[in-house]
Amino acid sequence: MNHPTSSASKLSYLPFIYIVWADGLLTDSELEIVRYTLRNDSTLREQERTELFKMLDPQRKPDSKTFKNWKESIQNNKLTIDFEKEYPLSDYAIRHARKQFPDFKGNEEGLQHIEHNLGLQPGQYRHFFQDSGGEVVEKPSFDSHKMRRILDGSYDSLIRRIQKVLKENELYQWELVKDLPAIRLKTNRQVVNLGEKGFGPLAFPGKYGGTGDLQAYGHIFENLIYAGGSTAVKFGVQYGLFGGSIANLGSQKHHDAWLRDLGRGQLLGCFAMTEEDHGSNVRNVKTTATYKREQKSLVVHTPAPKDCKIYIGGAGSARLATVFAQLIVKGTNHGVHAVVVPLRDEAGELLPGIRIEDNGYKAGLNGVDNGRIWFDQVEVPVFNLLDRFGSIDKEGKYHSPIKKDSKRFFTMLGTLVGGRICVGKGAVGGSKLGLAIAIRYAYSRRQFGKDIHRQENLLIEYPTHQMRLFPRLAKTYALHFALENLMERYANADPDDDVRELEAEAAALKSVASWHGNDTLQECREACGGKGYMSRNRIPELKADLDIFATFEGDNYVILQLAAKGVLSSFQTDFSADSFFGVIKFLRRKWADTLVTYNPIYTNNVDVSHLYSREFHREAFSYRRRRLTFSLAQRMNRMFKKRVTPYEAFLKVQTHMIQIAQAYAEERCLLAMHQVIEKTKEEDEKFMLKKLSALYALSTIYDHHGWYLEQGYISGTKSKAIRQLIHRHVQQMVPDGPALVEAFGIPEQYLELPLLG
Amino acid sequence: MNHPTSSASKLSYLPFIYIVWADGLLTDSELEIVRYTLRNDSTLREQERTELFKMLDPQRKPDSKTFKNWKESIQNNKLTIDFEKEYPLSDYAIRHARKQFPDFKGNEEGLQHIEHNLGLQPGQYRHFFQDSGGEVVEKPSFDSHKMRRILDGSYDSLIRRIQKVLKENELYQWELVKDLPAIRLKTNRQVVNLGEKGFGPLAFPGKYGGTGDLQAYGHIFENLIYAGGSTAVKFGVQYGLFGGSIANLGSQKHHDAWLRDLGRGQLLGCFAMTEEDHGSNVRNVKTTATYKREQKSLVVHTPAPKDCKIYIGGAGSARLATVFAQLIVKGTNHGVHAVVVPLRDEAGELLPGIRIEDNGYKAGLNGVDNGRIWFDQVEVPVFNLLDRFGSIDKEGKYHSPIKKDSKRFFTMLGTLVGGRICVGKGAVGGSKLGLAIAIRYAYSRRQFGKDIHRQENLLIEYPTHQMRLFPRLAKTYALHFALENLMERYANADPDDDVRELEAEAAALKSVASWHGNDTLQECREACGGKGYMSRNRIPELKADLDIFATFEGDNYVILQLAAKGVLSSFQTDFSADSFFGVIKFLRRKWADTLVTYNPIYTNNVDVSHLYSREFHREAFSYRRRRLTFSLAQRMNRMFKKRVTPYEAFLKVQTHMIQIAQAYAEERCLLAMHQVIEKTKEEDEKFMLKKLSALYALSTIYDHHGWYLEQGYISGTKSKAIRQLIHRHVQQMVPDGPALVEAFGIPEQYLELPLLG
Repeated sequence: MNHPTSSASKLSYLPFIYIVWADGLLTDSELEIVRYTLRNDSTLREQERTELFKMLDPQRKPDSKTFKNWKESIQNNKLTIDFEKEYPLSDYAIRHARKQFPDFKGNEEGLQHIEHNLGLQPGQYRHFFQDSGGEVVEKPSFDSHKMRRILDGSYDSLIRRIQKVLKENELYQWELVKDLPAIRLKTNRQVVNLGEKGFGPLAFPGKYGGTGDLQAYGHIFENLIYAGGSTAVKFGVQYGLFGGSIANLGSQKHHDAWLRDLGRGQLLGCFAMTEEDHGSNVRNVKTTATYKREQKSLVVHTPAPKDCKIYIGGAGSARLATVFAQLIVKGTNHGVHAVVVPLRDEAGELLPGIRIEDNGYKAGLNGVDNGRIWFDQVEVPVFNLLDRFGSIDKEGKYHSPIKKDSKRFFTMLGTLVGGRICVGKGAVGGSKLGLAIAIRYAYSRRQFGKDIHRQENLLIEYPTHQMRLFPRLAKTYALHFALENLMERYANADPDDDVRELEAEAAALKSVASWHGNDTLQECREACGGKGYMSRNRIPELKADLDIFATFEGDNYVILQLAAKGVLSSFQTDFSADSFFGVIKFLRRKWADTLVTYNPIYTNNVDVSHLYSREFHREAFSYRRRRLTFSLAQRMNRMFKKRVTPYEAFLKVQTHMIQIAQAYAEERCLLAMHQVIEKTKEEDEKFMLKKLSALYALSTIYDHHGWYLEQGYISGTKSKAIRQLIHRHVQQMVPDGPALVEAFGIPEQYLELPLLG
Repeated sequence: MNHPTSSASKLSYLPFIYIVWADGLLTDSELEIVRYTLRNDSTLREQERTELFKMLDPQRKPDSKTFKNWKESIQNNKLTIDFEKEYPLSDYAIRHARKQFPDFKGNEEGLQHIEHNLGLQPGQYRHFFQDSGGEVVEKPSFDSHKMRRILDGSYDSLIRRIQKVLKENELYQWELVKDLPAIRLKTNRQVVNLGEKGFGPLAFPGKYGGTGDLQAYGHIFENLIYAGGSTAVKFGVQYGLFGGSIANLGSQKHHDAWLRDLGRGQLLGCFAMTEEDHGSNVRNVKTTATYKREQKSLVVHTPAPKDCKIYIGGAGSARLATVFAQLIVKGTNHGVHAVVVPLRDEAGELLPGIRIEDNGYKAGLNGVDNGRIWFDQVEVPVFNLLDRFGSIDKEGKYHSPIKKDSKRFFTMLGTLVGGRICVGKGAVGGSKLGLAIAIRYAYSRRQFGKDIHRQENLLIEYPTHQMRLFPRLAKTYALHFALENLMERYANADPDDDVRELEAEAAALKSVASWHGNDTLQECREACGGKGYMSRNRIPELKADLDIFATFEGDNYVILQLAAKGVLSSFQTDFSADSFFGVIKFLRRKWADTLVTYNPIYTNNVDVSHLYSREFHREAFSYRRRRLTFSLAQRMNRMFKKRVTPYEAFLKVQTHMIQIAQAYAEERCLLAMHQVIEKTKEEDEKFMLKKLSALYALSTIYDHHGWYLEQGYISGTKSKAIRQLIHRHVQQMVPDGPALVEAFGIPEQYLELPLLG
C-alpha cells in the first residue's frame, strides 16, 4: 500500500494521521474528529481529501513500512517543536509542510480543531520530535544467561532438573484454587510426586536416596515457591522439618525405620514444636514425654488445653509427628526432646488419644493443612525417642553426649538452622517472582497511553516507578548471594564445628529477607495498580503466602535479638537467656576501652568515584555495625553501674539490639556481593554486579542516612550527593531491568499471566 | 484452706511452690520434679513432707487468699534476690527461711535440682521480687467515653444508630465466607438493607430521603468497614459513586427518575469510569457517546477490546451504569461526560450490546462484584446524559455553563472528591480495627509465659512492641481529626467556592491514610504472630480488603502529584496537565526571591519542654513543606534556564513532588490535632490529646530526621534527644493503650475474635 505524501495539505495533516494510527486503533471519536475537519477544509482539493480519507480507513491499516515512512517524513525535517505555543502540534504541522512548500498557507484552524478535540497533549507525542524520545528499552549491558549461571552457581543442572519436572507435569501449573480441600489435595499430591522424583531426600544421607546436600535442597525450595507458596512450605514440612528431624535428631535405627518411606513421600509426617501458649519459647513447651520403665514406653501428654501444638503443617494428613516435649525420666526433667508419635493409622483414621483441630483458612498457604494437636496420655515405645542427643538405656537411665541442658537444647535446635535459611531463600524467591512480574509490566504498560506504537511513557520511565523497583531488585540480588554464601558454609560445616556464628547469620538474614519479601511484594502489588490486586495475576496469593515468613521458623523480633546477642559477644557465648551475664561481662572486658572512630576525610567526600568505591561501602557498613555495638556496650555498662538487672537492661535496649542484628545482616549481604564480584571473570556481568552492589550499598546507606548524619559520619552535603547519585544510577540501569529479572531464571510458565498478556 | 508456713523447711520450699502454682496449671512434669525432691529430702520431717505434698495437690488449688498470703510471706522479708548467683532462687529461698530461722541449714542441693529441672529463669519470677514488677496495666489517665465523644463530634447519635443496626441484624455479623457467589449475595443484601434503613441517601438532597450531609455519610462508611471491607465499598459504589454521580452530575429530571429508588437500594447501579488501558488517565477514556440527532439518542460504544471499563464494582449485579465517555456531537468532541446506560432488565438479564466479564477473585473485597464492561453501539435516549455541566438541546446543540473543556472536566471530577475522603476514612477505620485487635492482644498475651497469675511480661511491656503500636495509634488519631476537619469544610463549601485546596487536601490525605492503613495492618498482623495469620482473626481479610485503597479512587502516586501541583501554586491554577506552564510561571514569580530560613536557636535545643511544645512541632512541619517547595522551585528554575521542557522537568522532580504532598498532608494532620486540642475543655482528655499530638509530631519528625539533619534544621544531638524522648513517651503511654482503642467506639461484636478469647 502506498500513501503519497506529496501535497502540502497532506503533509500538514500527516502528523495528526500518524498520531491517530500510533494510538494503536482508530476509535470512532478520533476518526470522526479528523473526518469532520477534512470535510470542512475548503483548501483541500477533492483528490487530496479522498486520499486523506483513505489514509484514515480503519480497514486499511498502514503496513509497518508505510508507517515508518510517515515517521521519517515527520521527523527528518530538522525542525523542533515549540511547546510554548498554544497548539504546538498544529504549529509544527504547518511548518513541516512549509519546509517543502514554503508558500503553503494551510488550514490552521482545522488542525487546531483536531488538536483540541483529540485532547492531544505534549506528553503524548513528544517522543516523535525529540532525541530523548527514542526507545528507552535499549539493549541490556550484559548477558542474562551468563548472569543466571553466576546466580545458580554449581547448581545449574539441579535447577534445570527441577524446572523440567515443574514444566512437564501439569500438577505444577499454577492455578487459583480457593476451595480448602481441593488446594490441600493438590498440594499433597505435589509433595508426594516430588518425593517420587527424588527431590525430597536431597539433604538426607546417601543411603536414603539423598546427597546430604542442604544447599541443593535450598534451591529446590526456592523454585517451588514459583510453583506456589503452599507447595514449597508443605515440601519443607515433609522433607525439611519432619524428615530433617529424623535425619538429624534420630540415630541409625530411626533412619532405617522411616527415612526411605518418608523421603519418597509414602509416609507423611509433621513437625510439632510450637505450642499455643509458648509460641517463641520452645524451651518451655509444656507437653511432656514421661518414661515408664516397666512398659519401656514414653507417655506423651498435653497438660492443659492451651498447651496444644499449634499451626502444625501437615496436621490434617500426617501419619507421624515429631513431637517436642519435656522428657521426664524418674522425676527428672531432662529438657526438650523429640519423640515420634503416630497420629493416624494406614486408613488415615486418628489414633486413640490424639485430637486434632484444623486451623481453617489462613491469609495464605492454604494448601498447607495446619492444625492444633492435643495428646491425651499417648503411649509410644521408647524406641521413638529421637536419641542422638539424649537416650534412655535399658535400665531406664538417661544418657546424653552433651551434659549441659541448655547446650543440648541449642545443639538440637541448631540442626534445624537449615530451615531458617530456606525460609530466607523462599522470601527471596518470592521477591524475584514479584519483581519479574512488576518489571515486565512496567516495561509494557504505558500509563497515559497504549500499545503497539510508541506513544506515551512506559511506567518504567517514571522516576518514582524506577525508585520503587530498582533498589529492591538490587537488594534481592544481595540477599540471594548472602544466603548462598551462608548456605554453602553451613552445609560444609563439620558437625563438631562451632556453628553459633552461622546460626546468628541465619537468624539475621531470615528476618531481613522475609521483611524484604513482604515490602517488595507490597510495592509490586501497588506498582501493578488494579491488575496487581486481581488474584489471577499471582501477586495477591504470593504476598499472602509470604506474609507469615516474618513469623514462622522464629518470629523476626525474637530471632533478631538472638542474633544480636551473638554479634555482641562475637559469638563467644550461647544465645540462651541465662548467658546474659556472660554477654555483659564479655562486653565490659572487650569494649570498655575500645573507641570506634571513623575516617574524617570521608565525611565530606562527594567525589563520584569515592561514592561508588567498594571500600567506602564496606567501611560505612562495618562502621555502623561496630558503632551500634559499641554504643550498646556503653549503655549496658551505665545500667550496670546503676544495678539494673540484666533482664531489665536487655529489655531497655531491645530496639537497639534489633538494629545491630539488621546492620549485621546488611553487612553480610554487602560482603557476599563483593566476594561474587571478585570471583566473577566475565567483564560485562562483573560490571553489572558492581552496579547492583553500588545501588544496594548506597540505598542502604541512604536508608540510614539519619543515623549516619547523627553520628557525623557523613555531612549533609554528602547525604544529598548520595541521594542524587542513587537517582542517576537507577535511571542508568533502566535498560538492564528486564535482563536482570530474566537472569533469575524463573520458569516462563509462571510468568504467563493475564496482566503480561 | 490453710497452708501453715511455720517450719523453716516449708519456708524454703515456698517460693518454688508459689511459682509452680503461679504458672497457672500444675503440669505433670513440674509436679513430678518437686515431688521427687521432697521424697529425697532427708532433712524433712514426715509431717512437713505430707503438708508440702498437700500444697502441691492439683485437686486442691489454693484459694486466692492463701495465694496472696504466700506471696506476702515471700516478698515481705526485705531481702533482695541476687541474680549473679548460679541459682538465684534457691539462694533466695534459703535466705528467706533463715530470716525466721537463722540456724536453718536447708536442702540447698534439692532446691537447686528443682530450679535447674524446671528450667526457671530470672525473667520468669523476677516480678515477685522487684518493685517494678507491679502490674503495668494501670488505670488510664482519661475517660474513654469522653474521648469517644470528641472523636465522634456531633455525629454521636448517627453513629449509635448505624451501630444499632449492625448489632441487631445478624446480616452484619462478620463471618469468613470464601465462596464468591455467597459473599456477593450477602454483601448485596447488606447494601439493600442499608438503603431500606435510610442510610443510603444520606448525602442526597432532602427530597430523596437524604440530609445532604456528606460528613454523616463518611461516618457510616467508616463504621461499615468494621462490618467488612466489601460492605463498605459496595455501599460506597451504590450510594456514593452511582448515587452521587446522579445527584451531582445530573439535573432535576434525573433525580426524579432515579434517586428515590436507588437510595432505597431498589435500583442497583455502578460507576463505570476506569478503562483497562487508561487507568489513571480518565480524561482520555476511549469510550464514546455519539449524539444521533434524528433518534434523539446517544450511542455508547467501546472502540477496542482494551477500552473496556474495568474493575467496575457492581458490574455483576447493577441494572444501570453511569458511564464516562467522550461526548461527540456533530463531529466535535466535547470531552468526558457521564451517561446513564441500562445494563440489565428487571429479570437481571443483560441487555443487547452489553458484554460483562467478571474480574474473578481479588486479593480482597470479594463481596464486591467487580467486572469489565464492553458496549457495542448501545443506544440510549439523550435524556440519560447527566447534564448539569453539559447538555444537548432539542436542536442538537451542545451547551455548557463552563466553557473551557479542561475546567469542565475538573469540575465534574471535583464533585466526586467526597469519595476520596471516604476512602481515607475507610483506611483510618481499618487501622482502628487492626490496632484495637493488636492492642487488646498485646495486653492479654504473655510472650514467654501464661495466664491467670502474673508470671511473665505481657507483649506490650516489650519496648519493641510498644514502638510498633503506639506511634501508629497516634497517627491514626491525627488522620481521623484531619479527615473530619476536611470533610466538614468540604461538606459546607458553597457549590461556587473554589474547592481546589480541598481537592488537593483530599488527594494528599487519601494517599497518606491508605498507606498508613496498609502499614498499620501489616504491623498488626506481625504483632499478633501466627494468630494474626488465621483468617478467623479478621486481620488477614481486613489487610487484603484495604490493600487496594492505595490504588482506587486515584492511584496514590498519581494523585499525590496532583496535590503537589496545588501546593506548589498555592492553589492558584488547575491541576491539569496543560497548566504546567502556569505553575512554573507562578513559581518563578513567587519563589525566586523568597528565602526559607529557620530559627537557628532551635537547632540544638534539647529541652524537653521545647521538644514537647506545639510551636516547635508546627514550625518543624511548616518548615519542611515550605523548604521542599522552595527547593523544588529552585530546581525548576534551573531546568528552565537550560530549556528543559516542562514535561521533562516535572518528570525529573517526581519524587520531590511526592514528598511535598506528603509533607503537606502531615502538616494538615498536625494542625487538625492542634485545633481539636484548643477546642477541648475536658482536662484529662485534653492532656491525652496533647500526648498523642506530641507523639505524632515527634515520630513524624523522626521519620524525616535524615532530611532535617541534612538541612541543618536539627543537630545530631537533638535528633538523638528526639529518639530518646519518643521511647520514653511511648512507655509512659502504656497504661492508656486499651482506653485509646476503646475510644474508637468499634462495636464490641467485631472484637469477639478467637485470638482475644
